[in-house]
Amino acid sequence: MEREDEETGMIEKEEGGKKVWKDVVIGVLLLCTLSLGISTALLAAKAANKASSIGEFFCQISGTIPSTPAPAPSPPVISTELSKVVDETMSACSNQGYKYTGETNCTCMDCYTGARCQTFVGADKCSIDANGGSPYMFAEYWVRYPETEFQMKLSERLGYLPAGIRSRLEEGIRKLHKLAGNAVTDNMNIVFGDGSTPLLTLVSTILQSSTNSLPLKVWAQKPFYSGYSSLSYANLVKFVGDEENRTTAAADEKVVEYVTSPNNPDGEIRTGVLSHPLTVFDKAYSWPMYTFIDQPFNTSAHPLSLWTLSKVTGHASSRVGWALVGDKKLADAMQAMACPIGCPVESQLVAIRAIEHVLSTQGELMKWGRAKFTERWGRIGEVFRNVSCYKVRNPRAEGYDRYDQKVYKQTPPYLWMECLNLPDQKSCGDMLRSYGMKCRDGEYFGMPKSFARLSLYVASPVFNVLIQKLTNMFANTC
Amino acid sequence: MEREDEETGMIEKEEGGKKVWKDVVIGVLLLCTLSLGISTALLAAKAANKASSIGEFFCQISGTIPSTPAPAPSPPVISTELSKVVDETMSACSNQGYKYTGETNCTCMDCYTGARCQTFVGADKCSIDANGGSPYMFAEYWVRYPETEFQMKLSERLGYLPAGIRSRLEEGIRKLHKLAGNAVTDNMNIVFGDGSTPLLTLVSTILQSSTNSLPLKVWAQKPFYSGYSSLSYANLVKFVGDEENRTTAAADEKVVEYVTSPNNPDGEIRTGVLSHPLTVFDKAYSWPMYTFIDQPFNTSAHPLSLWTLSKVTGHASSRVGWALVGDKKLADAMQAMACPIGCPVESQLVAIRAIEHVLSTQGELMKWGRAKFTERWGRIGEVFRNVSCYKVRNPRAEGYDRYDQKVYKQTPPYLWMECLNLPDQKSCGDMLRSYGMKCRDGEYFGMPKSFARLSLYVASPVFNVLIQKLTNMFANTC
Repeated sequence: MEREDEETGMIEKEEGGKKVWKDVVIGVLLLCTLSLGISTALLAAKAANKASSIGEFFCQISGTIPSTPAPAPSPPVISTELSKVVDETMSACSNQGYKYTGETNCTCMDCYTGARCQTFVGADKCSIDANGGSPYMFAEYWVRYPETEFQMKLSERLGYLPAGIRSRLEEGIRKLHKLAGNAVTDNMNIVFGDGSTPLLTLVSTILQSSTNSLPLKVWAQKPFYSGYSSLSYANLVKFVGDEENRTTAAADEKVVEYVTSPNNPDGEIRTGVLSHPLTVFDKAYSWPMYTFIDQPFNTSAHPLSLWTLSKVTGHASSRVGWALVGDKKLADAMQAMACPIGCPVESQLVAIRAIEHVLSTQGELMKWGRAKFTERWGRIGEVFRNVSCYKVRNPRAEGYDRYDQKVYKQTPPYLWMECLNLPDQKSCGDMLRSYGMKCRDGEYFGMPKSFARLSLYVASPVFNVLIQKLTNMFANTC
Repeated sequence: MEREDEETGMIEKEEGGKKVWKDVVIGVLLLCTLSLGISTALLAAKAANKASSIGEFFCQISGTIPSTPAPAPSPPVISTELSKVVDETMSACSNQGYKYTGETNCTCMDCYTGARCQTFVGADKCSIDANGGSPYMFAEYWVRYPETEFQMKLSERLGYLPAGIRSRLEEGIRKLHKLAGNAVTDNMNIVFGDGSTPLLTLVSTILQSSTNSLPLKVWAQKPFYSGYSSLSYANLVKFVGDEENRTTAAADEKVVEYVTSPNNPDGEIRTGVLSHPLTVFDKAYSWPMYTFIDQPFNTSAHPLSLWTLSKVTGHASSRVGWALVGDKKLADAMQAMACPIGCPVESQLVAIRAIEHVLSTQGELMKWGRAKFTERWGRIGEVFRNVSCYKVRNPRAEGYDRYDQKVYKQTPPYLWMECLNLPDQKSCGDMLRSYGMKCRDGEYFGMPKSFARLSLYVASPVFNVLIQKLTNMFANTC
């Protein structure tokens, strides 16, 4: 394809640590002030308990940053001066919605309404979407770092393969793996694709052509990632995780095993069970927010692993995925198929901004993510306590964590639950949906219908509703 | 894969026509003032003729817009007030380089140097890159429309498939085809991919699986687009345009024909010669900048055509391509492989901005492109006039143009030339390179080495050098 020579050049370096910290402190203080201000305003609007607790919660979460007593509540006056420091995407919508660049209206979160999303409609009067894996909660982190914003000009970088972008992203990713301690990238080739899903399909296609068997059979242990069952590539690849058991799959050396570790939906740490020559590791969730990191992923032993920006920084819609590939020839073949003339420059620029921020703050995002998910799992533990008909089925292993240098108990991003004592014909998903919780049915993961997955990636106000809805359902049906 | 429900919402509407026009007039006046100012400054820096002519040329090109006498030359003082209206990406670098957002240094064009790219190194002392198809010249258009810039926040649109984006882009593309008059999109499905090249490879893969022959044979008439010869998809697809002649290819009904029309490298208008059931149209260059549009492409008769943003608005690195597909099932199969969880949101936002600008200005960009390429072909005609050893081989057909409602002679974006009387063993490409013109050899297009392709997408200052170099080469060798 039309490959262009790269020019020389570099884009702006991230600001140094000191400046960032100063901005963070100012930003968080302002945001807390605003949150409290908005909360105060909402008190008058009869949404007092809800909004107030959200405002306080947000400030608690930011407690990992050097704190100063929050100023007394004041009206939400947003001056031009402040708007230079604060990202108002969420605060302009009472932190219960989003006001996107250039838009005049708020897009409210589930269960919130009003011009500024200031009104909670009531947990029993609305539905929440906890079906997909959209990492909405990360917006709460990024609004605190408005210095990561940048101007997108239509006159810039028009040529194919603009200079310095890919190499800078690659450098950032290698450093990110080192910071997280989750993979050794030395001697590994990095292949970029628009998300890890397309990389997965093309890996399968390449492997297919090397096995000379049509279609290529792909297998994963149950419960497997629901996406695999719809993975097909023009009849070249067939997922047989549902129809073949472990013994059958193990008997055919040509079957490729997909190992998702930590696993989706349950967070289980896996190493593969078929011991076949063709194994692909899906490492989307191997980050400190979700699990302990006891040792870096052994890329020499497993020279084909897939990673995605979506689950590290939350930028799912940017579609930035990468593979760590030991074999140079395979890496080249993959890159010739994925982004043959380079991946989109704009999403690479976003990825560079996000990753360099994580690096320059020594992983502040990961600490924030851990605190957030730990808090959420604490509340899930409370709501399931002494409940006999509904059970949490995430194994939630504990292990020594190199990142924090102490034992960490897994905090997976999905709640994988089982409904016991279900009425005939009813699935766990049906039960959850009847209480207004959109979820993913166990059958999509190769499991009985008594299982269901709920996303814990929802924004904080929506998570509060989720907890309330589970509480109500347990009280009424168990 | 993880498909998410779309939320409701819309992003900002483009500004109305009136406001845009006002800004355009102000912007162009300011830019001409700056260009002239910079030219004046450069006079003192011994680069007088060159820079001055560029400044004037730029203002001439903008003559399609209501003009006012340009103010007298003045020093290049750029106040904060002006910087709000003018995009300084190029003007900050003497219009002979680019200063990207956040960067402190200029990236100079070929043959220009200095902190502000103010110095021309001399046509005989430098090389220019006219090999690839990077549409650099479009930057000269977009700097005139700073109102198309937008802020990219890391806190926005984190979820998969953000609401309203794909549908808005699709709507823009249908209107763009209508404005250009180059395709009927009624009853056609639009499939998005990251560029048209990946769409081409996946179409081939899908077609392959329907023919049940391995590998799928793909053929195109010579001269064919150089990218096709490297098109391969894990041994599933094989390009046979080089090794099979028309008769052999026609005899095998399973051979897929790629029809590039207007053709790359020469701009020829093609309709396909094999008359096989499987034909894919590559319509990258079917826009008013390059050719007359006598009638919209008949999508009912040819229900599989590929298009790309790169050659309409110049945003090659954004990787936005689309296919117009008649068959819904094929369209769905393609979309399940290309961007299975949506294409990158950032590049879609850029595409929306660019396309809605073209629509709201009634195709100003296309008029600008025609003027630009017409001027360039005029200069090429002059330099080749009465030259016996070098010939232009673009057919440059004339036809009635619905767009301008008069006859238009094609202005293709590549110069396809032949070198006659070459010394033994030497190729036309060798000859051009020996004079510092990087080009693409005829052999990549399935043609003898006496042919070569030069890109006319280079920026204006580089095009001036190209003309100078050709003039020198002709004078010395012919």
